[in-house]
Amino acid sequence: MHRDEIPTPALLLDRDRFERNLARMAAHVRNTGKALRPHAKTHRCPEIAHRQVAAGALGVACAKLGEAEVMARAGVRGLLITTEVVAPGGIRRLTRLTGEAADTMIVVDHPDNVRALASAAAEDGVTLNVLVDIHVGARRTGVEPGEPALALGRLVAEQRALRLRGLQGYAGQCAHVMGWAARRDASHKAMAPLMETRERFAGAGLPVEIVAGASTGTYDIDSELAGLTELQSGSYCVMDLDYRRVGGRAGAALTDFEMALTVVSTVVSVAADRAMVDAGLKAFSTDKPFPPEAVERPGVEYGFAGDEHGRLTIVDAARAPRLGERIEFFPPHCDPTFNLYDRVWVMRGTAVEAVWEIAARGRSD
Amino acid sequence: MHRDEIPTPALLLDRDRFERNLARMAAHVRNTGKALRPHAKTHRCPEIAHRQVAAGALGVACAKLGEAEVMARAGVRGLLITTEVVAPGGIRRLTRLTGEAADTMIVVDHPDNVRALASAAAEDGVTLNVLVDIHVGARRTGVEPGEPALALGRLVAEQRALRLRGLQGYAGQCAHVMGWAARRDASHKAMAPLMETRERFAGAGLPVEIVAGASTGTYDIDSELAGLTELQSGSYCVMDLDYRRVGGRAGAALTDFEMALTVVSTVVSVAADRAMVDAGLKAFSTDKPFPPEAVERPGVEYGFAGDEHGRLTIVDAARAPRLGERIEFFPPHCDPTFNLYDRVWVMRGTAVEAVWEIAARGRSD
Repeated sequence: MHRDEIPTPALLLDRDRFERNLARMAAHVRNTGKALRPHAKTHRCPEIAHRQVAAGALGVACAKLGEAEVMARAGVRGLLITTEVVAPGGIRRLTRLTGEAADTMIVVDHPDNVRALASAAAEDGVTLNVLVDIHVGARRTGVEPGEPALALGRLVAEQRALRLRGLQGYAGQCAHVMGWAARRDASHKAMAPLMETRERFAGAGLPVEIVAGASTGTYDIDSELAGLTELQSGSYCVMDLDYRRVGGRAGAALTDFEMALTVVSTVVSVAADRAMVDAGLKAFSTDKPFPPEAVERPGVEYGFAGDEHGRLTIVDAARAPRLGERIEFFPPHCDPTFNLYDRVWVMRGTAVEAVWEIAARGRSD
Repeated sequence: MHRDEIPTPALLLDRDRFERNLARMAAHVRNTGKALRPHAKTHRCPEIAHRQVAAGALGVACAKLGEAEVMARAGVRGLLITTEVVAPGGIRRLTRLTGEAADTMIVVDHPDNVRALASAAAEDGVTLNVLVDIHVGARRTGVEPGEPALALGRLVAEQRALRLRGLQGYAGQCAHVMGWAARRDASHKAMAPLMETRERFAGAGLPVEIVAGASTGTYDIDSELAGLTELQSGSYCVMDLDYRRVGGRAGAALTDFEMALTVVSTVVSVAADRAMVDAGLKAFSTDKPFPPEAVERPGVEYGFAGDEHGRLTIVDAARAPRLGERIEFFPPHCDPTFNLYDRVWVMRGTAVEAVWEIAARGRSD
């Protein structure tokens, strides 16, 4: 099947680029002596997770329990759920999941939650693996570093049905700092309290066998931290416009990884000053302040024009789109774009090689 | 089952409000002598479509062929696909769909597409019902009104496998004009060329049995147009923050229809200055410049904080959220919010009464 036969809009993965991205990250963690547990919230696709593990990853990080359930059912192991699970129904699902995939890990940032997890795990006869989630400035989740973290770590260690494994600290505020040097400064400053907390844990005899963090923006920055054991970077496997623009060590764009994810659309209407494609705000992420970008298709600029329409402003009349033409776009943000599609078409050039289900799409629960 | 047992984030429909919305629109079209073919792109849910038809609608409008296929398979008839279908594979699917649901209608805005439809319909032995899509200023799809529209109408009428039924004109640029009087002026001005084109069609002996248009913002404005036969308004059935703020005939907010759609979330982390809910940019539409709004929960303000997190800024310390608390939010924009969920929980108060599949979710193809 050829690209031009796929019903549009559709999500495409360039397999060559994707495989090179996996190989490059594998080489990076090998060279820096770190482990990798890439974030599957990026793709929500077990086929991709299996390939990340085959390339050397310990497993995958999952933002939510629902995602982890899908990954476990698909045979992926080494799961780390990076958001606290506090609802009673969620805690029951977590003990059940751990019964099926015993090495699953969860994070905690509150003593009430620690006690609730311990109680449910004891009742259900499982041991939950736990990381203490440290607040490193993102103003999201996490206990404050230092003494509050240590107190929480001790509480976890006291619970017979919990097994403390170490720490997590995700400095989301640093992921998209523009310019590699500025991002390095920001991330090292943000992560310093995590490293200091690691020392306190070690000094108190608490386990720090796992200290997890890092985004795609800081994959080669946080790997400089001696105390960090594993990277959670996710977007590197496909990249997106947002990460490309933050800049890399080598230049003004982050080109260490290749743009492997596109949305293919069809021109469904043409007029003197515009052409309309069948991909609108249900086809692309809309959380960034910049639009999708046409791939190797000069002469047009994309603008959102409703649920199902994108308006191509014709900036070069000699290259005006023709009715029925197929045009590919890079999405602004890969994670929420994957989350709009049930499947991704895996391409070698313009030929469809496989179709992978995005089986955890919509599983934010 | 109680609301607080639903895995979160989850999409909730308040059934009482929803049913009152259907009844109010039914009364409006009855009183103004119009028909209703509400836009199912709003909800993508056959259960809702069936209830709209039971309340008097002729059928539903669908933005895309994929949506229409799901609706037809669920037994919904009277389908109008409001975007041109131009890809060869799409045209084949359209003739097949018309073979199953003979009253399905499609829109056209280009002579090449008219010929392609006619040729495929003749080969496949079906008659396609066609509306000419008129450009009424939205700079989206549609042939220019007046002479170009008339020429296209004549071309449709000449095709033995096509049956011309009339016109469509959707003035999307008017839907969210702030203030009812200003919106009325804008819409009447935009729709005037559609009405003039209707006269030309009638004068030329071309059918105008159907002249379709209108948004939820203009439902009681476009119904003033004598030549319009049916309304396509969609969001009225559940409403959203975006439509509420545009104002109604009676006041500064559009309150003719009630806010029936919410997302329920759980507080998963608390800190001195903030609380985090498990609903982020994969749980809500993100295409509008304003955030979700907490429902009857003073003291907090929602801000997006990543794929899976919303940050509640505590504006009233006496009302700080507690860990595990359930909080509901109105989404900014209903259509792309529905499109994130596989199901909607139908509520009578805080009790779950039913679960409806959003069967056409993701079917933008």
